[in-house]
Amino acid sequence: MPPINRIAPAVRRLRIANSTFQQPAFLRSAAAPVSTRLTYQARYQQTVAEPTTSASSVDHAPQSQPSHAPQQIKYTADAYPNIQRDSRFKEITAEDIKFFRDVLGSDNAIIDGVTKDAGEDLEAFNSDWMKKYRGQCKVVLKPDSTQQVSKILKYCNDNLLPINPQGGNTGLVGGSVPVFDEIVLNLSRMNTIHSFDDVSGILVADAGVILQAADDHVAEKGYIFPLDLGAKGSCQIGGNVATNAGGLRLLRYGSLHGNVLGLEAVLPDGTIVDDLCTLRKNNTGYDLKQLFIGGEGTIGIITKISILCPQRSPAVNVAYFGLESYEKVQTAFREAKSQLSEILSAFEMMDGQSQALYHRATGARLPLEGSYPFYCLIETSGSNTDHDSEKLNTFLEHVMGEEIVADGVVADNESQLQNLWACREGVSEASQHFGGVYKYDLSIPLPELYRLVEECRTRFQDNGLMDPEDETKPVLDVIGYGHMGDSNLHLNVATRRYDKAVEEALEPWVYEWVAQRKGSISAEHGLGLAKKSYVQYSRSETMVRLMKQLKGVYDPNGIMNPYKYV
Amino acid sequence: MPPINRIAPAVRRLRIANSTFQQPAFLRSAAAPVSTRLTYQARYQQTVAEPTTSASSVDHAPQSQPSHAPQQIKYTADAYPNIQRDSRFKEITAEDIKFFRDVLGSDNAIIDGVTKDAGEDLEAFNSDWMKKYRGQCKVVLKPDSTQQVSKILKYCNDNLLPINPQGGNTGLVGGSVPVFDEIVLNLSRMNTIHSFDDVSGILVADAGVILQAADDHVAEKGYIFPLDLGAKGSCQIGGNVATNAGGLRLLRYGSLHGNVLGLEAVLPDGTIVDDLCTLRKNNTGYDLKQLFIGGEGTIGIITKISILCPQRSPAVNVAYFGLESYEKVQTAFREAKSQLSEILSAFEMMDGQSQALYHRATGARLPLEGSYPFYCLIETSGSNTDHDSEKLNTFLEHVMGEEIVADGVVADNESQLQNLWACREGVSEASQHFGGVYKYDLSIPLPELYRLVEECRTRFQDNGLMDPEDETKPVLDVIGYGHMGDSNLHLNVATRRYDKAVEEALEPWVYEWVAQRKGSISAEHGLGLAKKSYVQYSRSETMVRLMKQLKGVYDPNGIMNPYKYV
Ligand SMILES: Cc1cc2nc3c(=O)[nH]c(=O)nc-3n(C[C@H](O)[C@H](O)[C@H](O)COP(=O)(O)OP(=O)(O)OC[C@H]3O[C@@H](n4cnc5c(N)ncnc54)[C@H](O)[C@@H]3O)c2cc1C
Ligand SMILES: Cc1cc2nc3c(=O)[nH]c(=O)nc-3n(C[C@H](O)[C@H](O)[C@H](O)COP(=O)(O)OP(=O)(O)OC[C@H]3O[C@@H](n4cnc5c(N)ncnc54)[C@H](O)[C@@H]3O)c2cc1C
Repeated sequence: MPPINRIAPAVRRLRIANSTFQQPAFLRSAAAPVSTRLTYQARYQQTVAEPTTSASSVDHAPQSQPSHAPQQIKYTADAYPNIQRDSRFKEITAEDIKFFRDVLGSDNAIIDGVTKDAGEDLEAFNSDWMKKYRGQCKVVLKPDSTQQVSKILKYCNDNLLPINPQGGNTGLVGGSVPVFDEIVLNLSRMNTIHSFDDVSGILVADAGVILQAADDHVAEKGYIFPLDLGAKGSCQIGGNVATNAGGLRLLRYGSLHGNVLGLEAVLPDGTIVDDLCTLRKNNTGYDLKQLFIGGEGTIGIITKISILCPQRSPAVNVAYFGLESYEKVQTAFREAKSQLSEILSAFEMMDGQSQALYHRATGARLPLEGSYPFYCLIETSGSNTDHDSEKLNTFLEHVMGEEIVADGVVADNESQLQNLWACREGVSEASQHFGGVYKYDLSIPLPELYRLVEECRTRFQDNGLMDPEDETKPVLDVIGYGHMGDSNLHLNVATRRYDKAVEEALEPWVYEWVAQRKGSISAEHGLGLAKKSYVQYSRSETMVRLMKQLKGVYDPNGIMNPYKYV
Repeated sequence: MPPINRIAPAVRRLRIANSTFQQPAFLRSAAAPVSTRLTYQARYQQTVAEPTTSASSVDHAPQSQPSHAPQQIKYTADAYPNIQRDSRFKEITAEDIKFFRDVLGSDNAIIDGVTKDAGEDLEAFNSDWMKKYRGQCKVVLKPDSTQQVSKILKYCNDNLLPINPQGGNTGLVGGSVPVFDEIVLNLSRMNTIHSFDDVSGILVADAGVILQAADDHVAEKGYIFPLDLGAKGSCQIGGNVATNAGGLRLLRYGSLHGNVLGLEAVLPDGTIVDDLCTLRKNNTGYDLKQLFIGGEGTIGIITKISILCPQRSPAVNVAYFGLESYEKVQTAFREAKSQLSEILSAFEMMDGQSQALYHRATGARLPLEGSYPFYCLIETSGSNTDHDSEKLNTFLEHVMGEEIVADGVVADNESQLQNLWACREGVSEASQHFGGVYKYDLSIPLPELYRLVEECRTRFQDNGLMDPEDETKPVLDVIGYGHMGDSNLHLNVATRRYDKAVEEALEPWVYEWVAQRKGSISAEHGLGLAKKSYVQYSRSETMVRLMKQLKGVYDPNGIMNPYKYV
């Protein structure tokens, strides 16, 4: 972690985050060193350890059951009876298993539920992170080389055996687990870091390298992986590229479409796409690799990537504000962009409801004493501590002086910095703490971004489904937060229990609302299974047709991650 | 132009660029206000106005004749007799002209050399910027709407009439002009800026908008177009996207693959690809638009783009150094990256030969008194003048104190800043000033980047073709310069006259050398006609096959920019 420097309070009302501002319970309970970035492991243990109140009365699907053991998750096939297994696909046989075993050459590399009973071992590969989707695959393959991947894909393509590529299985749209009996091809054994050039900042690594490991590797040389997200301890860089993950650093370092310089991938027919370029510039033909970035495993398996890492900033500062209106949030954002300019590395927005829910779920004391309708978290990262502090102080003086922000604190040390971040990063966990949550990850033009949350709230007030205190109402609260800097809103409807009426009030209303503003129904999480049938809200008929055409070009038999995407 | 702030000399040897450091003759001769960024217009006038010495003895092709009038340029078809006109293509008739005239609805929108004599009017559209390639098209179409483009393409596709998309015609690889009688579809009348959002920095504009106009437009709102290059007064943003142009800001703002958020394009069958997304994040399917970025007009016509513009920096500083070795250049680059970090906006390298040639061609006095084997130009751009000056001074003290750089100057005002930039940007012009030039735009891993120039020089010394003073030798000098920050070398062989022996000494040797280092034979200029037959030096057989497959998907009749690209 970069050292954090002290910034003197800019104006009278601005305080340094102090010791009375506590770390939330669920963060403290993790065994690992305190971190706001919960790993899959940590979060999983926690949800298993702390059964929550309701959700037992759930009797319809799909379901998000963070507090249920895997065996209680409904099969996706049952939850979505309208999806049928593609009858062209062959059922897997002992002969197929023999072929795979021969290719993989090691017993560790295959979980065989066809010729043996492997139910328990398979479960973790069949169930997704949200405990919302559950497949019925009987074979997990874990190749450790591109050649193995190529042989497996070619065989599956020739034999019409469907494949579900799987990285860290932290995806949030049901793309990482099978629907029926698709073979899981898991990349976890392909986890070598091949090279890092500490002049150019270019990293070459296997797709199965854990994001945290990649970031740690380059951190030693003073660089930073250009992507960061809550699942970094479990997700893989190949999975990140396959989902075109956005995360916390996009505002500063841009998207993976710009940062990924090359990749190696395998097409269904076994062709190895050898485009592992380690150059910043290479204008020699169509930039094919881009189709794999955000392709969600539907045209091939990414086996290696080459990526440009920016320099790590020695000075990192975090401030947390309360604001009186969404207009003020927008003004604060404009001011931050203009005054903090090249050192601004995050601008996150959380509404009052999201912070109250976070407090309610965790017992954590919030950084500010008063309560405000809106909060912002601002992070700066730069090369010179004094310069950054001065810029931040000037900015703080301005926004406090002009009453753009009502109150604020700045982190004085690393642990305060983590705690401020926890107020933002803990919201997602908090929103499903009381039973379940309907999650929408949306891009909306900035001026209208928050209006959706307000209208959604009004909707639930009007239809009588929401009450923060009344336990009989399904909806606890409607909260809005997200990557303001990227116009990316997370609309979360925190529920006490899943209820068809809630879902019906939300869908397709939310998608229609977003489509009317030319927003995106999936800013960063992707389509997967969850949004396959809603893509037309963000893409024209022509675009969908062209996408299907491309899918047909690379995967004519449709074996790659079927039932999902477009 | 942003104001430039004064930086006090850091150490004794570091001087402020002073008035004895003059602007070069060919820059002063331009009619427009002094600028290092020569426009097409300015350069064209100049080359016409100043006939140079040799190049008249040229009797082989291809030729680069900066000082000859258009009519003296050989037809590409004659220069490359191995390229044959595709006999499937129909010859254009009066009936076709009638169709185009009806679609376009205006006489200004068509140059008709089929039913009339339009030789002179057509010439500018048939000849490229380098005066190296010359086509024989008889019709230029200038649609002013996407609908018109769609109707034209569909008609041409149905009737097998080939099309050459053309933007500002500043491309350097012969892609922008026809080889035979391809119809030129010129975008210059589609030049409306549709919107600019000054909170998000997102610009939406027609493909035919001139880069300079786009930059000026966003500059008024405090933003900067994320691309800058010498041809900005003539090239179009659609052409920039079609070539995935790199230029001077890539080091800081990244490539167009990251910055272009959406586009509208027309496929040969008339389909309008409506992907003009104005969101920073939109993970809803394959990112098809990426295929048009760098597609060089071979799968469709880009009609509109949506692009993310960064904030303009109020503080801009430029320093110019002399260094004793390429090792020191690399060290200086590492130091600049680490110390100037987020404010570093350019790191350009020029070898001693390139600066001497620049001096010889222009008579311009160079910024430093002594002469050095290497020079660097460093630019910083930031939001705070004092902070930037301090960072730059600390950096300068360090690199001078450690004797990483031997001598240096910093610009004290806007005109000095322009003059320092001229020492870098004037090299390209200077290198063809004495007759002609063989130009290579290459990506090479940094440690080996300069070795190519040395080996090339040795080659010409050994084969007796080079002498800086002896007028009988074809080669004057071998120079190396380029975007060091992007590992992008421009290897230029300055000649007194074109000579087959020189070309044979260079090709395929240069390409082989680059391929052995896994570099790129085209860093930023693209393939066009010039490098079509060399793509295998940078791309595997598999990649070339996959690219051809894609071309077949979108342009099955091959009417889009034939004879070029892959
Ligand atoms: C706590 C938490 C926080 C998150 N925060 C963010 C965030 O801030 N921003 C954001 O964008 N996302 C976020 N996500 C979701 C994000 O998509 C994933 O965390 C991550 O990018 C997926 O990586 P993975 O290795 O887990 O992939 P998986 O979940 O295993 O797979 C995701 C998809 O990619 C495919 N895939 C995986 N690996 C490959 C491969 N090698 N080749 C081809 N296809 C492959 C799968 O088939 C699937 O369709 C978060 C998730 C969690 C659990
Ligand atoms: C002085 C000078 C300096 C330069 N500096 C740089 C530099 O620093 N970095 C760099 O990368 N390049 C540089 N270039 C080359 C660069 O490629 C072009 O200047 C520019 O990007 C091309 O734009 P244009 O509008 O002139 O396109 P054109 O030259 O007209 O066309 C270029 C290619 O794109 C296609 N095309 C053009 N418009 C469209 C469209 N709307 N739809 C589909 N296809 C289209 C054409 O068919 C052609 O294949 C320089 C050129 C000059 C003359």
